[in-house]
Amino acid sequence: MQYWFVSLLACLVIFSAAQSQQNEEYLEIGEKILHKGLVEEGAYTFLEKLLEVGPRFAGTPEKAAAVEITYQMLKDIGLDKVWLEPVTVPRWVRGDVEEAKIVGSQRIGDEILSIAALGGSIATPQEGITAPVVEVHSFEELEELGDSVEGKIVFFNRPMDRRHLNTFAAYSGAVNQRSRGAIEAAKYGAIGVLVRSLTLRIDDYPHTGGMRYEDGIPQIPAASISTKGAELLSESLEFENDLHVYMRFTPEMRDSVETYNVIGEITGTEYPDEIILIGAHLDSWDITPGAHDDGAGVAQVIQGLKLLHELDLRPKRTVRGVLFANEEFGISGGFAYAESAERDNEEHLIAIESDRGGFLPLGFTVDNEDQVVEYFQRYTYLFEPYGMHQIIQGFGGVDIIPLREQGTIAIGLLPDSQRYFDVHHSAKDTLETVNPRELELGAVAMALFAYVLAEDGLPRFIHEEYLSN
Amino acid sequence: MQYWFVSLLACLVIFSAAQSQQNEEYLEIGEKILHKGLVEEGAYTFLEKLLEVGPRFAGTPEKAAAVEITYQMLKDIGLDKVWLEPVTVPRWVRGDVEEAKIVGSQRIGDEILSIAALGGSIATPQEGITAPVVEVHSFEELEELGDSVEGKIVFFNRPMDRRHLNTFAAYSGAVNQRSRGAIEAAKYGAIGVLVRSLTLRIDDYPHTGGMRYEDGIPQIPAASISTKGAELLSESLEFENDLHVYMRFTPEMRDSVETYNVIGEITGTEYPDEIILIGAHLDSWDITPGAHDDGAGVAQVIQGLKLLHELDLRPKRTVRGVLFANEEFGISGGFAYAESAERDNEEHLIAIESDRGGFLPLGFTVDNEDQVVEYFQRYTYLFEPYGMHQIIQGFGGVDIIPLREQGTIAIGLLPDSQRYFDVHHSAKDTLETVNPRELELGAVAMALFAYVLAEDGLPRFIHEEYLSN
Repeated sequence: MQYWFVSLLACLVIFSAAQSQQNEEYLEIGEKILHKGLVEEGAYTFLEKLLEVGPRFAGTPEKAAAVEITYQMLKDIGLDKVWLEPVTVPRWVRGDVEEAKIVGSQRIGDEILSIAALGGSIATPQEGITAPVVEVHSFEELEELGDSVEGKIVFFNRPMDRRHLNTFAAYSGAVNQRSRGAIEAAKYGAIGVLVRSLTLRIDDYPHTGGMRYEDGIPQIPAASISTKGAELLSESLEFENDLHVYMRFTPEMRDSVETYNVIGEITGTEYPDEIILIGAHLDSWDITPGAHDDGAGVAQVIQGLKLLHELDLRPKRTVRGVLFANEEFGISGGFAYAESAERDNEEHLIAIESDRGGFLPLGFTVDNEDQVVEYFQRYTYLFEPYGMHQIIQGFGGVDIIPLREQGTIAIGLLPDSQRYFDVHHSAKDTLETVNPRELELGAVAMALFAYVLAEDGLPRFIHEEYLSN
Repeated sequence: MQYWFVSLLACLVIFSAAQSQQNEEYLEIGEKILHKGLVEEGAYTFLEKLLEVGPRFAGTPEKAAAVEITYQMLKDIGLDKVWLEPVTVPRWVRGDVEEAKIVGSQRIGDEILSIAALGGSIATPQEGITAPVVEVHSFEELEELGDSVEGKIVFFNRPMDRRHLNTFAAYSGAVNQRSRGAIEAAKYGAIGVLVRSLTLRIDDYPHTGGMRYEDGIPQIPAASISTKGAELLSESLEFENDLHVYMRFTPEMRDSVETYNVIGEITGTEYPDEIILIGAHLDSWDITPGAHDDGAGVAQVIQGLKLLHELDLRPKRTVRGVLFANEEFGISGGFAYAESAERDNEEHLIAIESDRGGFLPLGFTVDNEDQVVEYFQRYTYLFEPYGMHQIIQGFGGVDIIPLREQGTIAIGLLPDSQRYFDVHHSAKDTLETVNPRELELGAVAMALFAYVLAEDGLPRFIHEEYLSN
């Protein structure tokens, strides 16, 4: 053999031995984190306490209480640094009245419908709206009806497509009714909108969520209707297509409110300004305890930091937990964080968000190009023993979109999606639907990935391509 | 190139093209089964109806009703054959009284403890037992105490080990307290047994389950105690180690009862006597709706057959669904099935059981040697699109143990285990804890695997090694 070949071989052997030794070390750390997590189930304890304040909608006193509680939780862990950063959040208040019913049915009488105004909707007139209802399943169908919907309530009733294994795909295929329904209906003169709740269950809980208006198009009131209500209304319209619906709700916009992103970190021992962020959003919708959305993520971030701190795992780079002030109603937490002057001397390599519920974690989604996703797949071995090793291309998280736009690699914790939309944005999103072990496994996954990434950093090709702006 | 080499290459190419075409076909069939399943969620509908009868404990009228209901369900599908096969089941009746409390505590007074007699336990004396309590965590600890437990109640309080990711491993490490606790305690003269409930949650529900006596060793009454009760009792004993517990329960054995295994099949088009069995057990414990254990499995078997039937998927070999009459209290359904003369002209190649709850399916366990497990791993590709592709060595199912002893390959559906012991054998095992989609995915997995195995059969090496008796 040639000398150079022997040398190369020796190098490869040494390199791969070193690599495999490092892998062994990381695997052992994984076991430690897992065992500690499963034994103490701390994420559930944090979640239980957080949920005592009630719904944490942006700008509410309950949300302010949640800031204090989680700030204190981070302090109590004994992290290197815990602080608050100011965020201004818009304030929308649901109001006291929220009611709807079918009117004028010969067949079934005046049936009450369960509704919840969509977040951001204007109020109905004081006396409510009573108007004929037109059911549509798409914007195309609405366009065909055109001006015939004038003066009417448009009822968007396209269900989530059950055939998708991934319920988020089913959600994506239906959510435009909620987000843009009022805009599209108003174009043709409709005076109100009802949107089928975005859930795969047939029950009587309305599921709220964000909606938008557009400049130059009249603003009309919009509410979600429970799937049971939607089925009833649809069936009733088959028998009597001249049915009216009465609906009244009284939300209003108020002055913006000052609040905070809640932040704590384990400062890096070698490169303190290079950040691996783990994040979740502290706010919830106003009609729900928000146990999975996103109490679960908040609890996992806090517990993830606690696990690393108490196991004395101090990586070279900083692991920072951020509890974003407002995701549901305008992403103000994420924007304030990314745009803060505090970021000027920091480099955010990677941000990992947990905002898909506290269910069994299956892996991570990497919101980036193929070659970057492939790069992260080198960590598959770390999560394989726990069945959490799907590292695939996919969305990172809403709160970290602003960071992503600055070049940070956005990663999302990927739990099983089957149960998420049963509870999402509704009163059903309670502590009782959370399994302490599934929740904890998410904290374990986040902590382990954050630690290893904070040790390893990023290779030059990613660094130069994405972070050098 | 040599001629032989070219020929070999050509053969390989042709073979692998045929193989890959078949794989494509199976993948398409998988998509069809999946989509139909997710759209109709039939397993949940079956489960809902089944649960209306109440607990289905062996020998009860409710269990008899469940036989009729499921027989009718199979008939209604329009299967090729639906029938009943007789089974004799033992009959144990819990009785009306079931109570326990801490007695004589200066510190906390007479605290009530939630208990449930273990299945098969004798009654306490009419007036109950009031006796000192000795807490132990293992049979070794009990042995060391020896005769000092004479006249006392032994309190087995070893928790399931939370560090196991697989909760069944944690269960296995604790279940001997329940199954053999009364035997071991009676050896040293104890007069009663309390066993910490086998769950990872701390709550006030007792979880019952089977227990045994042994010839020549006195029979003493045994009950499960809720984990909350167990924690309270343990803590109380730390302060006052001379505490007494009063307990009284009144179960009794009655005459055996005649009932049935419920069976339906899609008869094989080419080899009708070669059977791929999908199974579950129809009975539940008497204190629980048994939604996950094993209503879920029953619903999945029925729905699995319905999916194949309605998609007109008629394989070469028979796909047979068996709802076993009694698993919880002596496996009489499984034994009667395997030993029936009806089996004489049949060859059971494979039996797949669903008895680990209606949770997210992750794959299958094959209860056999490495080379057999490896053989089945050729089907990984079929389940990979759905994330159900763990095909690993592991237990098949209790009801199919007798078939396995005859050489049948025993396979178990493998769902996520995190939530199972929250509800197992307790009043918490309700319909509300079942997600219709997770349940349906199990039916889809069973139907797809059964269909493909009924098409492919088994290779000679397995056939000869295991089935040629």
